[in-house]
Amino acid sequence: MKTLFAGAGALGSRFAYMLSQNGADVTLMDDWQPHVEKLKKDGLKVIIDGDDLGYHHFPVFYPEELEGEFDVVFVAVKSMQLPSTMEKLKPFLKEDTKVLCILNGLGHVDTLKEFVQPENILIGVTLWTSGLGGPGILDAVGTGKTEIKQVAGEDTRKTREIIERYNQAGLNFHYSDNVEQSIWHKAGLNGVLNTYCTLIDCNINQYGSYSGEDALTDAVLDEFVAVGRALGVAVNKAIIKANIHSCFDPKTAGLHYPSLYQDMKNGRLTEIDYLNGYVARRGKEQGIKTPVCDLITHLIHAKEEVNGNH
Amino acid sequence: MKTLFAGAGALGSRFAYMLSQNGADVTLMDDWQPHVEKLKKDGLKVIIDGDDLGYHHFPVFYPEELEGEFDVVFVAVKSMQLPSTMEKLKPFLKEDTKVLCILNGLGHVDTLKEFVQPENILIGVTLWTSGLGGPGILDAVGTGKTEIKQVAGEDTRKTREIIERYNQAGLNFHYSDNVEQSIWHKAGLNGVLNTYCTLIDCNINQYGSYSGEDALTDAVLDEFVAVGRALGVAVNKAIIKANIHSCFDPKTAGLHYPSLYQDMKNGRLTEIDYLNGYVARRGKEQGIKTPVCDLITHLIHAKEEVNGNH
Repeated sequence: MKTLFAGAGALGSRFAYMLSQNGADVTLMDDWQPHVEKLKKDGLKVIIDGDDLGYHHFPVFYPEELEGEFDVVFVAVKSMQLPSTMEKLKPFLKEDTKVLCILNGLGHVDTLKEFVQPENILIGVTLWTSGLGGPGILDAVGTGKTEIKQVAGEDTRKTREIIERYNQAGLNFHYSDNVEQSIWHKAGLNGVLNTYCTLIDCNINQYGSYSGEDALTDAVLDEFVAVGRALGVAVNKAIIKANIHSCFDPKTAGLHYPSLYQDMKNGRLTEIDYLNGYVARRGKEQGIKTPVCDLITHLIHAKEEVNGNH
Repeated sequence: MKTLFAGAGALGSRFAYMLSQNGADVTLMDDWQPHVEKLKKDGLKVIIDGDDLGYHHFPVFYPEELEGEFDVVFVAVKSMQLPSTMEKLKPFLKEDTKVLCILNGLGHVDTLKEFVQPENILIGVTLWTSGLGGPGILDAVGTGKTEIKQVAGEDTRKTREIIERYNQAGLNFHYSDNVEQSIWHKAGLNGVLNTYCTLIDCNINQYGSYSGEDALTDAVLDEFVAVGRALGVAVNKAIIKANIHSCFDPKTAGLHYPSLYQDMKNGRLTEIDYLNGYVARRGKEQGIKTPVCDLITHLIHAKEEVNGNH
C-alpha cells in the first residue's frame, strides 16, 4: 500500500514518519523550498516529546517532479491550497486511489468531489497535533486519534484496510459514521477561539476570562448550528461549548494562541473562509442570516489585507 | 455671563481660552491632578496652529473645592464621566443655569434629564478639534463650528444670548433644529471608523482601502439607521457614508488613528457604550436586532478587559 503525503508539513511529516518506521511505503510531496531541500539533502530531523530521534530519509518530490502511482493520497496542505493541489495530483490518481483529507475547516468534500469520485473520498477529523521546528525539522508532542469516513459507496473494504494498516503504525484511526458532526464541532470551536483571540489579541485563557465570553461564543455558535443543521449535520452547541470551555484552563490550552492568530501575526493568509466564512457563504444559499460570521470573516480579511499577508 | 467648564481637557480648555481672551468670565474644573496643578501654578500654556501664545491664567478648581454660581455649565468630560460630573455639579446649578453638552456619542440627553430641566439642556455637536500636549498644555490647530439646540421650551432667548456671546469670541456657534440628526450622523461615522480601525488595527486610510469596506460600513450603519429612526431621528445613511469617505484621503484624516483606537492603545476605557453600545441597547428596547453592534461592543470591551484598561 503506497501513500503519497501531498504536503509534508507538521502533520503530514509526522504521520509519514510513523508509517515509514513501521515499514510502509511512503512518498512526500511539498513545495516549500527550504523544507524540501533539507529533506532531500539531510532527511527529516525527528524530535518527538523532546527526544531527538535523528534523521530519516523518504522519497521527496516537488509537485512538478512527482512520479509514481499511489493507493492513498493523504492531503496535508493548507485549506486554501487544496484545489490547486488536487489539480496537480490529477495525473497520479488511479481509478481506485483513495484521497484522505483530515484538514481543519469546512467545505473540503465539495472541493474534492470536483476531482475524485465520492467513493474514493475519505474525510476525517484528527486530534493529533504536530509542529515544525524549522525547515526539515519535525518537532511534535503527545498522541492523538483520527476519525474517518468514506463519503459514499457501499464497499468500504479498502478504506478499512487503510485504517488497519495505519493502526499497525500507531496512527489510531477509527471508522465513524458521525465524522461530519465531529468536523463541524471542531470547526465550531475554531470558529470561536481562532477568530476571537485574533480580533481581541489574546490567548485562549484570556478569551475565556472575558465577562462577555458566553455572549460572544453563542453569537458564533448559533450561526454554525443553524447552517450546519440546514445542511443536514446534527451540530450540537452544548458539545462545542463544553469543548471550548475545556480549553480555557492554563494547564491545558489556555496559554496557547490559536493557529489563525499565529498565521495572522506571521504574515500568512488564514483559513477563515473554511470556518466562519464557509458558514456565512452556505448560510446565504440556505436563506439563513449570518451577520456575526459575515462580520468576523470581513474583519479577519481586513487584517490580512492591512498587514499585507500572503 | 459666567461659564464653568466642567472638564478642562483639549476642547474645554480651547473654548475657555478663546472666551477668556475675549473678556468673558470663565472658570475651569477638572480632576486630572498633573493638569490641574500645572494650571494653578503656571497657567495654561497655549499653542495654536504651532504658535506659542504663552501662559494664561484662569480660576481652576478640583471638583471638591468648586465655588460660585454659573450661568452656563459647559460639560467637556469623557462620556462615561457625565453622570458622576453632573452629580458633583448639582449644588452649583441655579434655576436657570444652562448645561451645554457637545460630547461625542449618543444618549447624553437622557443622562442630563436626570439632573436638569429639559429647557436648561443645550445639546450639540461640534466640528472643532483640539489636543493636549501634556498636562497644562493646549496644542490645537484649525477652526470649526458647533450646532446647538435647546432640548425643550419655547423661550430660547437665553440660549441665543449664549450663542451671541460665544460668537463674539469666535466660537462659531449656530442654533439648529436638526441637532439630533447631526449627532447621530457624527456618531454613525465614529461607530464605523473608531471601531473598525481599532479591531483591524489600522488607520482611517487603510480601513478605506480594504476591499470589503462597503460591506463593513453598511453593516454598522444599517443598524444605526434602523434604531435612530425608531427613536424618531431622520438618520440618513448616504450622508454618513459620504462623510466617512471624505476621511479616507491621506491629505485629510486618512493617516489619523481615531480617538477610540488611541484610548485603547493608551490603556483608557473607550466610549463604545455611547456609540455602537448605545445602538445595541436601544435596539433591544425597540425590538430591533443589532447583531453587528452587539458583537463590536463586546469585542471592544473584551480588548479593554484583556488590556486592563481603566
